[in-house]
Amino acid sequence: MTIADTLDALPTPALVLDEPRMLRNIARLRGRLDPLGVALRPHLKTVKSVEAARRLLTGGNGPAAVSTLKEAEAFAAAGVRDILYAVGIAPRKLERVLALRAAGCDLSVVLDSPGQAAAVADASRRTGDPIPVLIEIDCDGHRSGLRPDDPAAVAIGRVLEQGGAALRGVVTHAGESYGAVGADALAGFAEQERLAAVTAATALRAAGLPCPVVSVGSTPTAHFARDLTGVTEMRAGVFALFDLVMAGIGVCSLDDIALSVLTTVIGHRRDRGWIIVDAGWMALSRDRGTAAQAVDQGYGVVCDIDGRVLDGLIVTGVNQEHGIVARRPDSAAVLPDLPVGTLLRLLPNHACATAAQFDGFSVLPDDASQPMAHWPRFRGW
Amino acid sequence: MTIADTLDALPTPALVLDEPRMLRNIARLRGRLDPLGVALRPHLKTVKSVEAARRLLTGGNGPAAVSTLKEAEAFAAAGVRDILYAVGIAPRKLERVLALRAAGCDLSVVLDSPGQAAAVADASRRTGDPIPVLIEIDCDGHRSGLRPDDPAAVAIGRVLEQGGAALRGVVTHAGESYGAVGADALAGFAEQERLAAVTAATALRAAGLPCPVVSVGSTPTAHFARDLTGVTEMRAGVFALFDLVMAGIGVCSLDDIALSVLTTVIGHRRDRGWIIVDAGWMALSRDRGTAAQAVDQGYGVVCDIDGRVLDGLIVTGVNQEHGIVARRPDSAAVLPDLPVGTLLRLLPNHACATAAQFDGFSVLPDDASQPMAHWPRFRGW
Repeated sequence: MTIADTLDALPTPALVLDEPRMLRNIARLRGRLDPLGVALRPHLKTVKSVEAARRLLTGGNGPAAVSTLKEAEAFAAAGVRDILYAVGIAPRKLERVLALRAAGCDLSVVLDSPGQAAAVADASRRTGDPIPVLIEIDCDGHRSGLRPDDPAAVAIGRVLEQGGAALRGVVTHAGESYGAVGADALAGFAEQERLAAVTAATALRAAGLPCPVVSVGSTPTAHFARDLTGVTEMRAGVFALFDLVMAGIGVCSLDDIALSVLTTVIGHRRDRGWIIVDAGWMALSRDRGTAAQAVDQGYGVVCDIDGRVLDGLIVTGVNQEHGIVARRPDSAAVLPDLPVGTLLRLLPNHACATAAQFDGFSVLPDDASQPMAHWPRFRGW
Repeated sequence: MTIADTLDALPTPALVLDEPRMLRNIARLRGRLDPLGVALRPHLKTVKSVEAARRLLTGGNGPAAVSTLKEAEAFAAAGVRDILYAVGIAPRKLERVLALRAAGCDLSVVLDSPGQAAAVADASRRTGDPIPVLIEIDCDGHRSGLRPDDPAAVAIGRVLEQGGAALRGVVTHAGESYGAVGADALAGFAEQERLAAVTAATALRAAGLPCPVVSVGSTPTAHFARDLTGVTEMRAGVFALFDLVMAGIGVCSLDDIALSVLTTVIGHRRDRGWIIVDAGWMALSRDRGTAAQAVDQGYGVVCDIDGRVLDGLIVTGVNQEHGIVARRPDSAAVLPDLPVGTLLRLLPNHACATAAQFDGFSVLPDDASQPMAHWPRFRGW
């Protein structure tokens, strides 16, 4: 069996995961972090799959980060015991947090306000279970969190510690690094991320508060950090699959992208230079993360069935179930003859968003003679 | 019970469907089409829910259009017997088409090339089941289809009729009408759509070919067509729920939008005028359909728990599970005090895309004293 034979059995559109590439990507990040003495806490929001998580997590069940309580519940049920719910906690969600903890999962939460801290302390006191908390620090102004020198962090720490919860540390995420390009710029973001977390941790410790965990991370900074002094753990999610946004900022090459959408040619508009395929935004997502990059990849880069990039071809437009494949505006490539029925593979802008459109991965094995596995994904909240 | 009490029981983010608004929207379109003597074939790609489809379809099981074979299979299993699969057929999908037809569903397909026609004719001949086909006509250059005067339509019709398939008619969709604004512009698109379909039908009939069905439609043209002479059926999908894109082109008002995403405030960045909510792109989708409109609504318009629009507030940014609520750039509105835990409702840019992010609708009943229903949605292909 060739890859083409294997893929030919799938209905389209389908989400194809190249497992050997994924394993190589995981090994690459571990190879970087091990010498720096920093633990890896993979963010499972990208894969949302127990089978994929097994390959990402240290020992198969090691520390993890998640973006929803649904993920926490699914991975806890699969045996993952150390989970950081990395989105600011809403008091109304604490019952589910407590239930997971009561079932034996060391689930920790994130917050950045005294009001949230009081709610978490109340829940902890009421149940006698000190919920572990990481205070969110803002290192680049992109979203939530306290500035690293904000005295509110110490006040929040005291509310937690005196109220019955457990201050476990600080957490930050250099979300703006996705807009940087090249090793030096990314190393700069990594240092900014490290410094913000360490500054906040130092202030907490100086106030007599505990801060065992100093958690930083994003795929770009994880790959380009030069010094992680004071950091205890690194979070990253998309590193295992990669995508066009990551390739555009120089974190990976197109050959590292482990995710693609299998699609079938369903028509042509030869007068316009268009090839119509059966992957629209429902399959690819509406993510246009490369729009602001030096090379705008439209809704995805077009490859042949074997994963070889077809020179100059991208998805230039999408409707719900139609994609329009055409030459990139600056390309002089000749439009290849791709008859109706031809199978193509599309590399996505954003792995998290594209994968979320599917109920599972069709997994290409290392050995094309082996059958393809199906790894279910879950979703929801 | 008030609406707020009812919604307070839901985990967030959640997809809320206001059933009375939906029923009013459905009645509005039926009220327009009935005097014009045109049948309604609702496009079920927006709702992907059997319960919602019952309310959309004539008699509960009447003619329908779908965008995937998964939809066709789900609605056929629920008893819908006349389904148009409105995306160009790939020959590899014909086995599933035949299986549905063998199970008693009158499933028709769409195509625009002689190669597809030959494949459909072959499948029809092989099984003795003449698959009904609509030839796709392009009325505005937005996607697939033959130009209305393209002689290829007659050639395709002959391949079908002589090959054992059944030519049922022509189908077109004024996708570009989503970019028009106002009654006159939309009426212009409707006439262009009508004329394209009727021109192609006339050419087929002149060549001695059958063309019983002349199918047109999009929500804007369905609402603004002034004359539908020669048209036999109208397709529309988003008309039942509406969204900000439809409001922006003047097809509905904000008060007609039946879909919203329930979200919880999880933080603030008061220095930046930001309120952080737990609905990011995973809940809202990445659709930015209002970006090119006169009023850019960001990732959604912000309402209070009762559905009242909060003046000047939109979702200005999203990450996977975070939304940033802030004032619209041109707004002088004062940012209201919305403490952590406050429930809000977000009106979506694009109902099809936002609804697709959820596994079901939480349905607000007409009478707030009644319990909320849950209508499952399906997805995939």
